[in-house]
Amino acid sequence: MTSISDSEPILVVGSVALDEIETPFGSVEEVIGGAAVHFGAAASVFAPVQLVGVIGEDYPTDQLDFLARRGVDLAGLEQRPGESFRWGGRYHYDMNTRETTRTELGVFADFRPRIPEAFRAARWVFLGNIDPSLQLSVLDQIDAPRLVAADTMNYWISGTRDPLLEVIARIDMLTLNDEEARQLSGEPNLARAGRWIQTRGPRHVVIKKGEHGAMLFSDEEIFFAPGYPLEDVVDPTGAGDAFAGGILGYLARAGGTGSTELRRAIVYGCAMGSFACEAFGPGRLRELSEPEVERRVRLFRELTHFEEPVRVEGA
Amino acid sequence: MTSISDSEPILVVGSVALDEIETPFGSVEEVIGGAAVHFGAAASVFAPVQLVGVIGEDYPTDQLDFLARRGVDLAGLEQRPGESFRWGGRYHYDMNTRETTRTELGVFADFRPRIPEAFRAARWVFLGNIDPSLQLSVLDQIDAPRLVAADTMNYWISGTRDPLLEVIARIDMLTLNDEEARQLSGEPNLARAGRWIQTRGPRHVVIKKGEHGAMLFSDEEIFFAPGYPLEDVVDPTGAGDAFAGGILGYLARAGGTGSTELRRAIVYGCAMGSFACEAFGPGRLRELSEPEVERRVRLFRELTHFEEPVRVEGA
Repeated sequence: MTSISDSEPILVVGSVALDEIETPFGSVEEVIGGAAVHFGAAASVFAPVQLVGVIGEDYPTDQLDFLARRGVDLAGLEQRPGESFRWGGRYHYDMNTRETTRTELGVFADFRPRIPEAFRAARWVFLGNIDPSLQLSVLDQIDAPRLVAADTMNYWISGTRDPLLEVIARIDMLTLNDEEARQLSGEPNLARAGRWIQTRGPRHVVIKKGEHGAMLFSDEEIFFAPGYPLEDVVDPTGAGDAFAGGILGYLARAGGTGSTELRRAIVYGCAMGSFACEAFGPGRLRELSEPEVERRVRLFRELTHFEEPVRVEGA
Repeated sequence: MTSISDSEPILVVGSVALDEIETPFGSVEEVIGGAAVHFGAAASVFAPVQLVGVIGEDYPTDQLDFLARRGVDLAGLEQRPGESFRWGGRYHYDMNTRETTRTELGVFADFRPRIPEAFRAARWVFLGNIDPSLQLSVLDQIDAPRLVAADTMNYWISGTRDPLLEVIARIDMLTLNDEEARQLSGEPNLARAGRWIQTRGPRHVVIKKGEHGAMLFSDEEIFFAPGYPLEDVVDPTGAGDAFAGGILGYLARAGGTGSTELRRAIVYGCAMGSFACEAFGPGRLRELSEPEVERRVRLFRELTHFEEPVRVEGA
């Protein structure tokens, strides 16, 4: 594996927000969040990141300094007159279900991603969960990426299905959660849902199952990685984006998309998703070191490894 | 691994029922079911089984012939005047949730397990999901088993908590689903729930998560195996008991309870649980061959195996 500075950069386009989060164990306000921030905080552990997003005049940009220090190029982060995107969520007792308590789009309502000239040659691309028509506009602005992954959600699946299917036809990897996979495919069975989505374009489909882990459908293979059994889940916000950041970060660093790299990438994604849950906002990812990530990946191996049984004789 | 006839027998005590099952894809009536039947159908692939239960005069005992042919000793299956236990369930569209549509206990209401003399030396014991006071009476009737596993459910956790805790203190392995683990422990977090249950007695706690797989808490270790991504789930009834049958069957066959055997046993359990879902009642387990089981265990390995990454350099 090459060093971080030798890795090809990853372009991420997505929301940059200020979150207020309430859990049974505590709450925070005005903490930096949004898909691009969580993705960037995770991916930058492995490779340089180029971020495209929009913030208002009120955004505490100093809180993004840690990203810049870790090699996230913020040249594509537009600051515009108006208020930043504010999102709020409240988690229930089991930390697995939440309700959205606030959605004030502010300047994000008029977000039209403009990819800086210097970012257009990106080889690895992540389209965060935004309007599929904007995801398409990003695809039109980039050159010849090696792998494009996109995230989506129920809102776009039900509201803007056709442009979403256009996006799906043009990308290499779709990430979405289990309910969204069922909704998109019309298949209640997840194995069928994953296969159905593959037939619409992407070679790789990643179904996120929260605490239950993640499934990768890749060509003919299926790979499964569990959620890490954390004893203290502080805040799951952004875990899905940190998961994607771990996947693309690992792939960019490894420089390959074969079965071996993809399987490992899903595990790195699960590891980053688990770290994301350990503090409010991107707090845990901020100080994360590579040896810590490697240790957790080894724990994933201990968690799932079993020795192949000796062939049963007799009977 | 020894042959099936060299394996020590497994004693199972539990319900023997007639089920009516309704799914979005079909329905059946008067099909043999109950924990002891599903467990026995799975465990007998690996080792001899001794079954203790009760049926009414109306039970179609010829439908149990396949169990007898596979080495299930039915000497402990009492036939009593009255009606057999009848249970009904209806599955929803996603096959993951169901409602109970019928519970007529019949002769099962007065079930008082009597362990035949010849069964008391059993080295491997599974206490199916019955009243904890009956599970205790079984523990009082057996000699010196090597491993006792028990299953339970929400009804006993809320209704007969004290005798259930007595059972838990006397067994080696508890199997229960994720919601039940949370309910029993009062811990919404599954990792903590598993640890809490271990402190009450059993060295091994197995948390069943249905399509999401299973977690084993064993001494200080945690092991995770996924659900098999079946494209056609016909009927999940009895999958949890077939899962337990696979676990105890494998352990009895392997003759050990070390970490290597326990991890493999969970995978064999998941394999048997997946087979159980492929037909109504114990239909798929009835004709199951060992090579088919071995093939599926190898698929589980392909599903979860990843190569350990080379240590990240640089950065």
